Amino acid sequence: MIGTRPAGQHTVRRHNAALVLGAIADGPGTSRAGLSTATGLTKATVSSVVDRLIAADLVAEGEPERRAGPGRRGTVVSLSPTGPHGLGIEIGVDYLASCLVDLTGAVRFEEVRYADNRTPRVFQRVSAFLHKARKQAEALGISVGGVGIAVPGLVESGLVRLAPNLGWRDVDLADRLGETFTVANEANFAALAELWHGTALPDFVHVSGEIGIGAGIVLDRALFEGVRGAGGEIGHLPVAPDGPPCSCGANGCLERMAGQDEILRLAGAETVDDLFSALESGSAAALTAVSTAARHLGLGLSTVVNLMDVPAVVLGGTYARLEPWLREPLLAELERRVPSTTWSPVRVVPSALGTGAAVRGAACSVVRGILADPEHHLTTHWPSDQDARGR
Amino acid sequence: MIGTRPAGQHTVRRHNAALVLGAIADGPGTSRAGLSTATGLTKATVSSVVDRLIAADLVAEGEPERRAGPGRRGTVVSLSPTGPHGLGIEIGVDYLASCLVDLTGAVRFEEVRYADNRTPRVFQRVSAFLHKARKQAEALGISVGGVGIAVPGLVESGLVRLAPNLGWRDVDLADRLGETFTVANEANFAALAELWHGTALPDFVHVSGEIGIGAGIVLDRALFEGVRGAGGEIGHLPVAPDGPPCSCGANGCLERMAGQDEILRLAGAETVDDLFSALESGSAAALTAVSTAARHLGLGLSTVVNLMDVPAVVLGGTYARLEPWLREPLLAELERRVPSTTWSPVRVVPSALGTGAAVRGAACSVVRGILADPEHHLTTHWPSDQDARGR
Repeated sequence: MIGTRPAGQHTVRRHNAALVLGAIADGPGTSRAGLSTATGLTKATVSSVVDRLIAADLVAEGEPERRAGPGRRGTVVSLSPTGPHGLGIEIGVDYLASCLVDLTGAVRFEEVRYADNRTPRVFQRVSAFLHKARKQAEALGISVGGVGIAVPGLVESGLVRLAPNLGWRDVDLADRLGETFTVANEANFAALAELWHGTALPDFVHVSGEIGIGAGIVLDRALFEGVRGAGGEIGHLPVAPDGPPCSCGANGCLERMAGQDEILRLAGAETVDDLFSALESGSAAALTAVSTAARHLGLGLSTVVNLMDVPAVVLGGTYARLEPWLREPLLAELERRVPSTTWSPVRVVPSALGTGAAVRGAACSVVRGILADPEHHLTTHWPSDQDARGR
Repeated sequence: MIGTRPAGQHTVRRHNAALVLGAIADGPGTSRAGLSTATGLTKATVSSVVDRLIAADLVAEGEPERRAGPGRRGTVVSLSPTGPHGLGIEIGVDYLASCLVDLTGAVRFEEVRYADNRTPRVFQRVSAFLHKARKQAEALGISVGGVGIAVPGLVESGLVRLAPNLGWRDVDLADRLGETFTVANEANFAALAELWHGTALPDFVHVSGEIGIGAGIVLDRALFEGVRGAGGEIGHLPVAPDGPPCSCGANGCLERMAGQDEILRLAGAETVDDLFSALESGSAAALTAVSTAARHLGLGLSTVVNLMDVPAVVLGGTYARLEPWLREPLLAELERRVPSTTWSPVRVVPSALGTGAAVRGAACSVVRGILADPEHHLTTHWPSDQDARGR
């Protein structure tokens, strides 16, 4: 049905800008002629779009193309290193993190500050942390194109419906902090970061273990959020239905049985670093604690694989570091619980990004948003062409 | 990108035939002029396609259109009641079922024969049952356009990889029975029947309880089969991980804890009819058996809702009849286990089709296949236009 009705001028302009910018992101250092071939647009259209993108500093011109043979050499273009950056903020249960990325998703700076966020003062603290990150960007001469915030909870249309580990219910961060953000579940942001800058897999479940356990499910290179947006919740899968009570009110949830707190408790360790020392020195309690958690994690993940037939599990957060100890008992439980593993094995791989995945995903989602719809960015930041030319 | 390259003649013909036949299925009793409006094709193209579909008996002409005002009245067309029918066969653990449907999906006949199929003689039995159904169709002057077979197991590209309750592993029905079929998991066929001819919901999980428990998940009016096709398996979700051993080798699977056999055992009933008599007379053992099963079912379904945020559960098979007793404990467990039920409640509804859903889905999938690609049907059944005109 596409193409049966003539599209409006604005729609065409919007589509073409996204098409050209996408081609530049996919193939940095391409000439206008190359972009014309890649997009199927005329050279005149490509040139007009590129000029507009350059004026808004989304694209920068580089050296003339290196090419053998006759003919004029075109000037190549790439995403602008000085263009709008994405700022990510993660509100963890016991830390705040920030991350600034350029248009290619490369990290310019990141910071983690540890403090218990289970306090009403958390909003002031986030506000100050955000202000500091903006100042840092300013000092580097970087313009921030938007802010993404990762939270350990269920988010619906920007509203944090429930974040049990922070004690939040129906929290509107835009209202609390006085500006608009891209707010999403930390596990979903982490899975997107893994998709964009980590593993090259098209289909996987990314499970991140911290105090809470979250999962982000990627199917066919896109985030799967379920019918109404609250999908991918694995922290509260019942892995020991008659087990000890969980913070959510139910019993024996995955998070309660295999989260960081339970592993530390079973291992008799104070901190995550203590746990790793104990594991490396072969402590029986630490080894048992991790293999018990791995069995519960395998039980929860067997459900994900049985329901969605996902071919890979990416271990993120603290689980990425624990992977050498988690791997075997986890795979054994998956094989025991998933009939299809006989003919369709499941891979278990550690995240390439580790504990920084969620905040990186929050930052990158801002620049991905600009790349996907540059015209929207142009019209909000450069109200008219006249203005754009004037600057 | 669609429409940027000219499509081949054959592709266009195939597309147009499906488009016109789809419009006829959606609006029976439409004139050629009406079809031209509905599809955007010229009247000449519509007429040529309709003539071809009439020659193959996929479409039949009816009475002249009833219409006020001036102008010539067109002859209306509908799906042909004498056109190719779909035959469905279900291989249950303790029964065989058949169902014949016309092009609209209306049932022409259905039959169920009870017998334990956990025997090597099952293939002979299916062959004889299929032969009998074909004879019945022949006696009614009905042409069978294809056969769909529903099995209680995991199917991959037509191969039954695993059907634990039948003791099958890697069974190729085409090879065993000497003809080709559309083979799929019974729960998936049941969910499709529910989508096409039962509930009008666009997103739901259909869970059917028999000796095994299967689920079919429909998202946005399409079957969700997971990344590699073995998704939607809920029978072996671990609801009592340290519970009694299941036929699959693991422990405390949903099927083991909430399947028909366990309910009968806990209720002290011999047959399903005995169970219903006991429930209706208020037997404490029967009521406890069903509410225990409901709690386990709620535990398993909470997982589906947490992962996929599906807004409705359709109870099929024996569960449809048990719905009055299952409903409350099931909802209570869902509310306890799914954090998002607070703002996004989950509906629980009985299937409109009951135990006949799977075989009906198998039959309907044959006619849906013909409707979706009539050109394929025409070229296999009517090798050339010459032939078609000759008959």
